[in-house]
Amino acid sequence: MTHSRRDFVRSTTGAAAAVAGFPHIIRKQDDRMVRMGLIGIGDRGTGTLRLMLRRGDVDVRAICDIDPDAIARGREQLIEAGVENLGVYTGEESYRELVEREDLDAVLIATPWRLHAPMALAAMRNGKWAAVEVPVAVTLEECWELVETSEETGIPCMMMENVCYRRDIMAVLNMVREGLFGELIHAQCGYQHDLRFGFKFRPGVEFGENARGPARWRTQHSVTRNGDIYPTHGIGPVSQFLDINRGNRFVTLTSTATKTRGLHQHIVDHGGRDHPNASVEFKLGDIVTTVLSCSRGETVVLMHDTNLPRPYSLGFRVQGTKGIWQDDLRSVYFEGRSPRPHRWEEARGYQETFDHALWKRYTSDAEGAGHGGMDFFVLNGFVESVKRRVPPPIDVYQSATWSAISALSEQSIALGNHPVVFPDFTAGKWATASPDFGFSDEF
Amino acid sequence: MTHSRRDFVRSTTGAAAAVAGFPHIIRKQDDRMVRMGLIGIGDRGTGTLRLMLRRGDVDVRAICDIDPDAIARGREQLIEAGVENLGVYTGEESYRELVEREDLDAVLIATPWRLHAPMALAAMRNGKWAAVEVPVAVTLEECWELVETSEETGIPCMMMENVCYRRDIMAVLNMVREGLFGELIHAQCGYQHDLRFGFKFRPGVEFGENARGPARWRTQHSVTRNGDIYPTHGIGPVSQFLDINRGNRFVTLTSTATKTRGLHQHIVDHGGRDHPNASVEFKLGDIVTTVLSCSRGETVVLMHDTNLPRPYSLGFRVQGTKGIWQDDLRSVYFEGRSPRPHRWEEARGYQETFDHALWKRYTSDAEGAGHGGMDFFVLNGFVESVKRRVPPPIDVYQSATWSAISALSEQSIALGNHPVVFPDFTAGKWATASPDFGFSDEF
Repeated sequence: MTHSRRDFVRSTTGAAAAVAGFPHIIRKQDDRMVRMGLIGIGDRGTGTLRLMLRRGDVDVRAICDIDPDAIARGREQLIEAGVENLGVYTGEESYRELVEREDLDAVLIATPWRLHAPMALAAMRNGKWAAVEVPVAVTLEECWELVETSEETGIPCMMMENVCYRRDIMAVLNMVREGLFGELIHAQCGYQHDLRFGFKFRPGVEFGENARGPARWRTQHSVTRNGDIYPTHGIGPVSQFLDINRGNRFVTLTSTATKTRGLHQHIVDHGGRDHPNASVEFKLGDIVTTVLSCSRGETVVLMHDTNLPRPYSLGFRVQGTKGIWQDDLRSVYFEGRSPRPHRWEEARGYQETFDHALWKRYTSDAEGAGHGGMDFFVLNGFVESVKRRVPPPIDVYQSATWSAISALSEQSIALGNHPVVFPDFTAGKWATASPDFGFSDEF
Repeated sequence: MTHSRRDFVRSTTGAAAAVAGFPHIIRKQDDRMVRMGLIGIGDRGTGTLRLMLRRGDVDVRAICDIDPDAIARGREQLIEAGVENLGVYTGEESYRELVEREDLDAVLIATPWRLHAPMALAAMRNGKWAAVEVPVAVTLEECWELVETSEETGIPCMMMENVCYRRDIMAVLNMVREGLFGELIHAQCGYQHDLRFGFKFRPGVEFGENARGPARWRTQHSVTRNGDIYPTHGIGPVSQFLDINRGNRFVTLTSTATKTRGLHQHIVDHGGRDHPNASVEFKLGDIVTTVLSCSRGETVVLMHDTNLPRPYSLGFRVQGTKGIWQDDLRSVYFEGRSPRPHRWEEARGYQETFDHALWKRYTSDAEGAGHGGMDFFVLNGFVESVKRRVPPPIDVYQSATWSAISALSEQSIALGNHPVVFPDFTAGKWATASPDFGFSDEF
């Protein structure tokens, strides 16, 4: 990365106005730099910083974290990459100073969940494009405020939902659009990932102020909330399949939670009955099942399952009038196309045939990026959008809609599994908007 | 089968009184005969008749069907087996005469769904043990009437839910009871079976009076009902895992249906847009998702999915604090026991280790019986119970509870996915009753 490229920067003048000014040009011909601030340099922020530094078009000018170790880690990475005059912000509210800097185009936010919305709002209000780790918000009020603020300021906010870019997901998106499934009828997905070991409780059975990593803040959500608190990795991709907010929308959901056993059992097993955390009362049901209905008549079953022993699975299933795909089985069945009636067919051949243009083009760039390469694409999508001043591939409406499921799910469970009406963050625009995700090989 | 064995019959005097009189003796030492009437000799009845004739302890004395071909088929089988003086009943209401015969111990009912409850009620009211194909009833009122009638008469009613006896299901039941899963938290199941071809529409796209087989009556349920109209193959086994009605019970459910496309599409594809059936408006959503909550805090996700192209699957999943089983993957994971952390392990080895005593004992008897041998066991369970005058392995409370899901699911969907309270057919007895299914190698 040369210094001259880094200095070639244009100022941001508000996305809505700017879109017209910057024609849609392909990435390799676009040598503009994105001047970026990074808030949050934990596990996730560190990984993203590494990816930003691998690119030739991101100029990280400022970092923010309340943890001195995190700051040291970030600073070291950046100095090694040749960054000079790095802005460093360490106080509780110092992110507000970062987003006020006049030399930034965008801010990437990789902090604990409850800080996402306040930070994204501050960024937009200061004219900075906001890239936000999942979920973009925790409460419904935050979801609305993000939408309204993005509309008022004309500044985009993109939730960095990387699973939308998983290679098999993008191939299935192609297959959906090619009509292999016929008319879509039903989908399933979820976040089924045992987070008890080496993550929530790292090390051992501590969480909160005594812990490091996500256990420091994430586990606390299991103490105070009961609902699908992490829906976006499943619902993001499914929303792309179903044209959510772009011809279709979620209209209602019900959620049902099991009893709460996993975390307490883990503490007792590994810390003993006398460990202080053995007396913590967790509120989050071990498994939360959410069923969503769409305006076009499809249903989606969404699982949250993070506190029991189990192999990892996002449990995708896509089903239509002509066929079905099941992630866990790595199999498909398409009537009249699959060789044996009523028998699964390996998905592998379809992966090759329907591999997405983005993956074909950027396979080598994605190599070594986090989560099997997905992380490259989601960052690329944001950065290229900023450079072109075009709407990002995941807009504020998707970000709010997917994240809102948590609060709605909590409501439904609190009401005894009562159906909850899904808000329309697009204020009716969903009905005429067209799908826009994954239609090119650019970003 | 010798004639002398056939004639060795005891009269039924009401099960409740009789249980005390007949000690629990093992099958091979019990040479009593069960005098049986068979109502309904369609596909299912014919298969069951064949199994009854393979046994040495069932004396089929009377048959009933409104279809002359069915009667001819049944009569032929029975004459070939040496039956003399067969009672034959062919009129609409002639089943009432059959159940009034004084020389029958029991009646097996394999008729269209809507006839199950009226026939079972008539049987019990005439002192005949009732074996009923699934579901035992269509409406909630019927479920209640079956329970009340069985209690009043002291005559048992057993729904013939064969999947409770599937070999892997019984091994998993052993594993549940051995504690491999720890405390159970969640289960999934469903009836996911493409019934459009060669079954509902046999041949072609006809149903109702113009059709043969199940298309004659079953498809009509898709015209008039929207709910999980066929829940028992999934929920029966899961209820055994969860001790439903025996220490646990279902307390609430929600159901959500997709739009309705599959059957219409099938008719258009294979009969053309001008076929009279292309104008039929089907009410049943292609996929119905039901989420049940249990008094002990577990949840169950139950799918109904019969009108879209897909490979067959009952989609079982059992999950607890220590591990998980997924039917479709033929895999398990048990923390601390499975060789690789967070990685699936093939279920095969567990099948061998935890194979149920019934299957070990009766493997050769089950060979060639319908549905992979399950049909042998469910019939065996009923016949051996009648011989011993002991409660059948699936009692009237289970039969009513599992079947009631259909009507409750229809209610929930009609109410906009509103949660529906599950009736307690046991009137509180569930709290103190102990599990009783599959505890011996007898039946």
